[in-house]
Amino acid sequence: MPSDQPLFASDRRGSSIHSEERAAEEDTALLGGQRNVDSSPQSRTKFWRELGLFTWAVIATAAVIVLAVYTQHQGSRQNDNKAATKGKRNLIFMVSDGMGPASLSMTRGFRQFEGKLPHDDVLVLDKHFIGSSRTRSSNSLVTDSAAGATAFSCGLKSYNGAISILPDHTPCGTILEAAKKAGYKTGLVVTTSVTDATPACFASHARYRSQEDLIAQQEVGEHPLGRVVDIILGGGRCHFLPNTTSGSCRGDNRDITKLAQDKYGWNYIDNRKDFDGLKLGNAANLPLLGLFARYNFPYEIDRRNMSDVYPSLDEMAQTAINALHLATEESDKGFFLMIEGSRIDHAGHGNDPAAQVNEVLAYDKAFGSVVKFFEQSKTQGVLVATSDHETGGLSVARQLTPSYPEYVWYPEVLHNASSSAEHSHRRLAGHISTGHNNIKDFVTEELVQTGLGIKDATEKEIKSILDNPQFSSIAFAGMISRRAQIGWSTHGHSAVDVNIYGSKGSEALRGNHENTEVGNFLQDYLNLDVGAITEELAKKSHALQLSEVDSLPWSGTLPTEEMVHSFEQMDSLPRGLEMNLP
Amino acid sequence: MPSDQPLFASDRRGSSIHSEERAAEEDTALLGGQRNVDSSPQSRTKFWRELGLFTWAVIATAAVIVLAVYTQHQGSRQNDNKAATKGKRNLIFMVSDGMGPASLSMTRGFRQFEGKLPHDDVLVLDKHFIGSSRTRSSNSLVTDSAAGATAFSCGLKSYNGAISILPDHTPCGTILEAAKKAGYKTGLVVTTSVTDATPACFASHARYRSQEDLIAQQEVGEHPLGRVVDIILGGGRCHFLPNTTSGSCRGDNRDITKLAQDKYGWNYIDNRKDFDGLKLGNAANLPLLGLFARYNFPYEIDRRNMSDVYPSLDEMAQTAINALHLATEESDKGFFLMIEGSRIDHAGHGNDPAAQVNEVLAYDKAFGSVVKFFEQSKTQGVLVATSDHETGGLSVARQLTPSYPEYVWYPEVLHNASSSAEHSHRRLAGHISTGHNNIKDFVTEELVQTGLGIKDATEKEIKSILDNPQFSSIAFAGMISRRAQIGWSTHGHSAVDVNIYGSKGSEALRGNHENTEVGNFLQDYLNLDVGAITEELAKKSHALQLSEVDSLPWSGTLPTEEMVHSFEQMDSLPRGLEMNLP
Repeated sequence: MPSDQPLFASDRRGSSIHSEERAAEEDTALLGGQRNVDSSPQSRTKFWRELGLFTWAVIATAAVIVLAVYTQHQGSRQNDNKAATKGKRNLIFMVSDGMGPASLSMTRGFRQFEGKLPHDDVLVLDKHFIGSSRTRSSNSLVTDSAAGATAFSCGLKSYNGAISILPDHTPCGTILEAAKKAGYKTGLVVTTSVTDATPACFASHARYRSQEDLIAQQEVGEHPLGRVVDIILGGGRCHFLPNTTSGSCRGDNRDITKLAQDKYGWNYIDNRKDFDGLKLGNAANLPLLGLFARYNFPYEIDRRNMSDVYPSLDEMAQTAINALHLATEESDKGFFLMIEGSRIDHAGHGNDPAAQVNEVLAYDKAFGSVVKFFEQSKTQGVLVATSDHETGGLSVARQLTPSYPEYVWYPEVLHNASSSAEHSHRRLAGHISTGHNNIKDFVTEELVQTGLGIKDATEKEIKSILDNPQFSSIAFAGMISRRAQIGWSTHGHSAVDVNIYGSKGSEALRGNHENTEVGNFLQDYLNLDVGAITEELAKKSHALQLSEVDSLPWSGTLPTEEMVHSFEQMDSLPRGLEMNLP
Repeated sequence: MPSDQPLFASDRRGSSIHSEERAAEEDTALLGGQRNVDSSPQSRTKFWRELGLFTWAVIATAAVIVLAVYTQHQGSRQNDNKAATKGKRNLIFMVSDGMGPASLSMTRGFRQFEGKLPHDDVLVLDKHFIGSSRTRSSNSLVTDSAAGATAFSCGLKSYNGAISILPDHTPCGTILEAAKKAGYKTGLVVTTSVTDATPACFASHARYRSQEDLIAQQEVGEHPLGRVVDIILGGGRCHFLPNTTSGSCRGDNRDITKLAQDKYGWNYIDNRKDFDGLKLGNAANLPLLGLFARYNFPYEIDRRNMSDVYPSLDEMAQTAINALHLATEESDKGFFLMIEGSRIDHAGHGNDPAAQVNEVLAYDKAFGSVVKFFEQSKTQGVLVATSDHETGGLSVARQLTPSYPEYVWYPEVLHNASSSAEHSHRRLAGHISTGHNNIKDFVTEELVQTGLGIKDATEKEIKSILDNPQFSSIAFAGMISRRAQIGWSTHGHSAVDVNIYGSKGSEALRGNHENTEVGNFLQDYLNLDVGAITEELAKKSHALQLSEVDSLPWSGTLPTEEMVHSFEQMDSLPRGLEMNLP
C-alpha cells in the first residue's frame, strides 16, 4: 500500500459522504507516483483539488502529532506521580532525626555568617521544602524515634519504644521488607548504631528499642523473612561482637559479624581503609555490612580531624546509592534506601547548637548528593526526606536577663567552636582519669578557649565544671547556647511539626500530613503490599523471638535514654571515643 | 470560496510537492457539489482518492480541535494563577502575628483534648498549609513586626521598627496604597491597635513604630496619597482621641475621629451596638472606621464573657469582607483586605499558652470564614496567610527536673484555665488598688483556682505573687506553662521560619520563601505597580512629616516594647481592661 494512503484507514467506512458504494483498485501513486500527466483543464482542477486536500491532511496530521507530544509532555509534568506508576523505580528516604523547624533557621543563619553569604542564601533542603508532618505517637503527644520510624516503615501509629510492632504487640510489615520481597535491593545508612530505633524499624521487629542485640540478629538475616537488607553502613559494632570480645556491648557471646558472613553471605568491613576500597560503591559487593564505630560516629564538628577514621554521612550515602544502583542495573526493579542524619537528634539531646548546625550541614550535603544522583542518573525515582520529631525544644533566640530582650542571636559563637560539648566532656574525663593535675588550666585553655572558642568564661562557669565534671557536657553546651542566645526547653523531644522535603514526584506529600501518610506514600510509590508482609510475619512471628522480652517492664518511660542522659550516669565516663548517646 | 477548501490556505505555497507551477480556477465543489459524475474506472479511482484524502484531512482536523481543547483545559488547570491574570480579583491577606510552627502543634493537641477528637483531627489552617517564610530583617537575624510587615506591604527588607520605610529612611509604596490607586477597595482588620506595626505598614509610613499618633493621622487620610483605606476595624482608639479627653494616649490635642469624619468622610463607630448595626457588613457604609477598644481587644479566652462588649476577629473579618464585597459589586476591580490575628503575638510575649491556643483557634475560625467566602461567593480571589515571626521561643515540651524527661505535655492544663495571665494580673492589681485586705485568699481562690484552674499551687508560688504583685502576669503564665510542660525561651521574638497558608491560586508560594516574596506575590496577584507609588511618595514625602521624628533616638533596641514589658514598668498598673501589650 502506498505510504500516502489515508492514515486512518479503518475510518474510511464511517466517512460515507456519498451514500452510493463503489469498488476501486488504487494502484497508482497519488501525486509523486503519477506516470501520465493529463494537462486538460478538468484534470488540472482535479490535480489542484487533490493537492489541496493532501496539503490539508498533512498539515492537520502534523498538528495532531505536535499537540499530542505537547499534551503528553504537559500531562507528565502535571501528574509525575500518576503518570510514572509504571517502570523501574528507585526510592530514597532520608530521616533527619530530631531536626525541627528551628534547626533550619539556625543552620541557615550560621552558614550565612560563616560563608559571608547574602541574607537570602539557603540550604539545598530549603529548595525542596514541600510540607510538614505531625508526629504524635499512639500513646503520647510527643513521640520517640521508634514510634516515629514505625510510622514511616509500616505507615501505622504505635507506642513510644515500638520497633515496627503495633500497640497489640504484633509485628507490622515494613516498606523495606516488602521492597525486598518484591525484588528491590535495599539499604540502610546511619551515623549512629545500625541497631538504633530508626534503622531498626525498617528491618526488624522488637517490642522495645533497647533490644538491640535481637535487632542486630534480625538485621543480618535471623528474621522470619530471611535477609531483607543488601547494604548496611553505620555504627553500633558493639551489638554484633560477642561479649567475650573487648568492644562488645552484647548480653551474650554470639558473634553476629561471623553469623552474618558464614550463614547469610555478608561481606563485612569495619574500618576506613576497607571503606575507601569500596570506591564510593563502585567496587562494592553486596550484601555488605559496614560497621565503622562501636557506638555512634563522632559529631561532624569533631570528625573534621578524624576523617581518616570515619567516613562521612555523604560518603556513605553515595557509596550505598552507587552500590545499589549498580546491583540493580540489569534488574526490572530498582532499590529502596533509607539514609539517616542520626546525630542531629543527639546534638538536640545534648542542647549543643554548635554540634547541631554542623550535623544539619552534613545532612544537607548528603541530601544534595541524592538530588544530584536522581538528576544525573536519569533513573526514575523519588527522594523524600523528613524528621521523626524535634529534639531539645530548640528556639533561635534566648532572653538572658529580666529586662526586655533585643531581637538577636549570635551565629559567630557557633562559628568559634571547633569541638562539641560531648567531645570536650570526653577529653576532660580522659584528662582526669589519666591523673593529670593542672585540670583548671586544661579546662580554661584547652577545652573552653581553644575547643569551644569562648574567651570570656567566668570564674563561676569554670568552677562549676571543676566541681561537677560528670555534668561538664551540659555545662559546655550551656556556655555556648547562652552566648549565642539559643534556647532549649528539654533534653528530650518536643511535639512541633517537622518539615517534609521531596524531589519531583513527591507532590502527593505537599502540605501538612500525619507521619503515617509519609509511610503510606513510600509504599504507594513502589506499589508494595505491606499488608501481605504483616500477614506473613503473623504466621512466622515465633521466629521473631518476641517472647524474649516478656520480662521487660514497660512503664511509659524510656530507660535507655534515661540511663544515658540522667546526670548521675555520666559518672561512668570515659567510655572511649564512641560515647553511646541515644 | 467553498467551505471545503484547505483550511491552511497560506501553507499551500510551502507544499510544492511538484516543482511545476500551474494556475487553475476551482469553480466546482469538491465532492458534494459535483454536477457530472464520471463513471469511468480512472474517474472512480480519482474519486476514491479524493474521498480518502478528504476523510484523512477531516479526521486529522477533528483530532487537532479535540487535542487543542484538551491542552487548553490542562493548561488552565496547571497554571490557574497565570491563566487567570485577567478579570476582577479579590485578595485577602491574613497575618498571624507571632505564630510559629510550635503554636500549631500546641493548639491542635489542645483542640483534640478539649473536643475529644481523633489524633488526626486538624485545624482549617492545616488543610491549607503550602509553605514557609524566612523572616530576618535588614538589620537583624530576628525581625520585629514592623520590619516583618514592611516585607509584606512593600515586598522589601527593612530595619526593625520601620513602618514601610526603607533603611535609607525613604518611604516605600505598599500593596494597599497601590491597590487603592488602581481602583480597588481596601481594608484593615486587627484585634490590637489599628496603629500597631502590622496594620500601620499597609497604610502609613514612619521611621519608627512608636509614632502611633502620626500613623493614626495617615490612616484616616492625612497621607500624601489622601485616604487609602475604606474600612478599618480594630482597637487603639486612644491614638485618635485628643489628650484633653480621658481615654486618650495622644501627645497632642487633635481629635482624629473628628478629622476623619469631617475632612475625609469616614463613618465612625466605637461600640458593639453600632457594630451589630452593621449586620456583618451588609448594612455598612464606607469609608468605615470602627475602634472598639482603647488599646487591644481582650484575649479570646477572656472575651468569652465579654462578647457583648467586643466583636470577635471572625465577626470583624466577615463584616469587612461583606462590606467590601458589596461596595465593589458594580466595579471592575475587587478589594484588598488585611486581617490580623494580632494577639497570638501578645500571648507569646507573655509566655501564656492558655491565652495563645484560644487566640490561634479564633484566628483559625476567621481563616475558615475567608475560605468559605471564596468558595461561596464564586468571586475570583486568593487568600494568603502567614506570620511575621515567631514570639516567645515556644516549645511544646519542657523538662522540669534534671532527670531525663518523659515525652509528654499536658493540654488539660490549658483546658482548665478560663482566664489569661494578663487578665488575672489586672484583676489582682485592681483588687490591691481598691484597698482589699484578703489578698492571699483572692489570689489562691479567685485567680489561681478558679481563673487558672490550678488546684495544686504551692505556698512558694502564692508567696512569690504576693511578694511581687507587679510581676504576677509572668508568675501566672509560668504556673500554667510549667504544669502543661510548655517551654519558652524569651519574652521577645525568635528566628524560626513561619508557615504560609493559601487557597487555590496561591501555588506560587509553595515551598520555602523569603518573607519579601510573600509581599511580591500579593503585588503580582493584583498586577499592581508598587514602584510607581514609591516614586509618588518620594515626591510628596514632605507630607509624611517624617522630619518630626528626627529627634527620636534609634539605638537598635525597641523602646516601645521595652517600655511596656520591662518588669519595673508593671508598677503602673492597673490601666483598665485594655492593657497595652505590644
